Amino acid sequence: MGTSSRVFASLAVSLDGYIGSASGDVQWLHDAMRPDEDYGFSEKMVRTGAYLIGANTFRATGAMGRSSPSAPTFVLTHGSPETAPRGVEFYAGDPKALVTRVKAATDKDVWVFGGGDVVTQMLEFELLHELELAIVPVILGGGVRLFRPRRTPIRLRLSDCRSFPSGIVILSYECGAT
Amino acid sequence: MGTSSRVFASLAVSLDGYIGSASGDVQWLHDAMRPDEDYGFSEKMVRTGAYLIGANTFRATGAMGRSSPSAPTFVLTHGSPETAPRGVEFYAGDPKALVTRVKAATDKDVWVFGGGDVVTQMLEFELLHELELAIVPVILGGGVRLFRPRRTPIRLRLSDCRSFPSGIVILSYECGAT
Repeated sequence: MGTSSRVFASLAVSLDGYIGSASGDVQWLHDAMRPDEDYGFSEKMVRTGAYLIGANTFRATGAMGRSSPSAPTFVLTHGSPETAPRGVEFYAGDPKALVTRVKAATDKDVWVFGGGDVVTQMLEFELLHELELAIVPVILGGGVRLFRPRRTPIRLRLSDCRSFPSGIVILSYECGAT
Repeated sequence: MGTSSRVFASLAVSLDGYIGSASGDVQWLHDAMRPDEDYGFSEKMVRTGAYLIGANTFRATGAMGRSSPSAPTFVLTHGSPETAPRGVEFYAGDPKALVTRVKAATDKDVWVFGGGDVVTQMLEFELLHELELAIVPVILGGGVRLFRPRRTPIRLRLSDCRSFPSGIVILSYECGAT
């Protein structure tokens, strides 16, 4: 019933902490990545049994247009649940209850696909096991910030650090979810 | 005359991009650092022939109270130049002219000691050769940001990446100053 499922997030972030440019343009990221570098994307696909994603990110990534996602996908929304394509479920309730529901849908791991608000919420509720940040060697200057402001610090434990010739560095952290 | 001097900055930054907590408290940093880890501080002291520091940071670090700094120190200020202790010079002009002046004061390297605004200015004017960021495994939630907003991206080149058992990761970048 997925009780051993691990919940993980993986995001690319600029040196100044943005996951998206002000215009929504992702050219900065494509410019930085190199086709011969393995950032572990397919490895993450293989371990994933379900996706959890915020409604804005779901719409922005164009996931709506696809016929069906590669794994059951749960979309966290503040609005009313919407009619969804096959394999996609909108959810307007409590994030904790949603994580329980998502874990019950798979024996594999859960990929929190973004955006920043959802990832921060998962961290704050101690629902996230792993946070992977791909630090892109660019100062964007503005855009969509990964972390939203909060009052108390959250300490993480570094579990891995890998650098690539492109200058991208992938930092992996354990986040204290149980 | 210091024409081969390299200008470098080295800052500790939280995962969410803050170099100082909202209250100015540095406990988050002391909590993260371990006495048995060598972050290269003394190595940087040895290569440094002059310091360049913003007026706010100069005051905040209490440098004013010391009898004399270990190397000539130039303080960039927006206000009128102040009376300074021996070895310290306040400078209210153009950052480019100041860097020329600082380089002329030493054959060794120039340590831009902060704060974030001064480091960002040095980057923007292409006066900085090296930027070293010690990524501290904590999400602070708020405080003093390292980079100020800007309109065009700045690309850097990763030159080194070192991780420590404490979870601190030191990322070193070449910044394109000539």
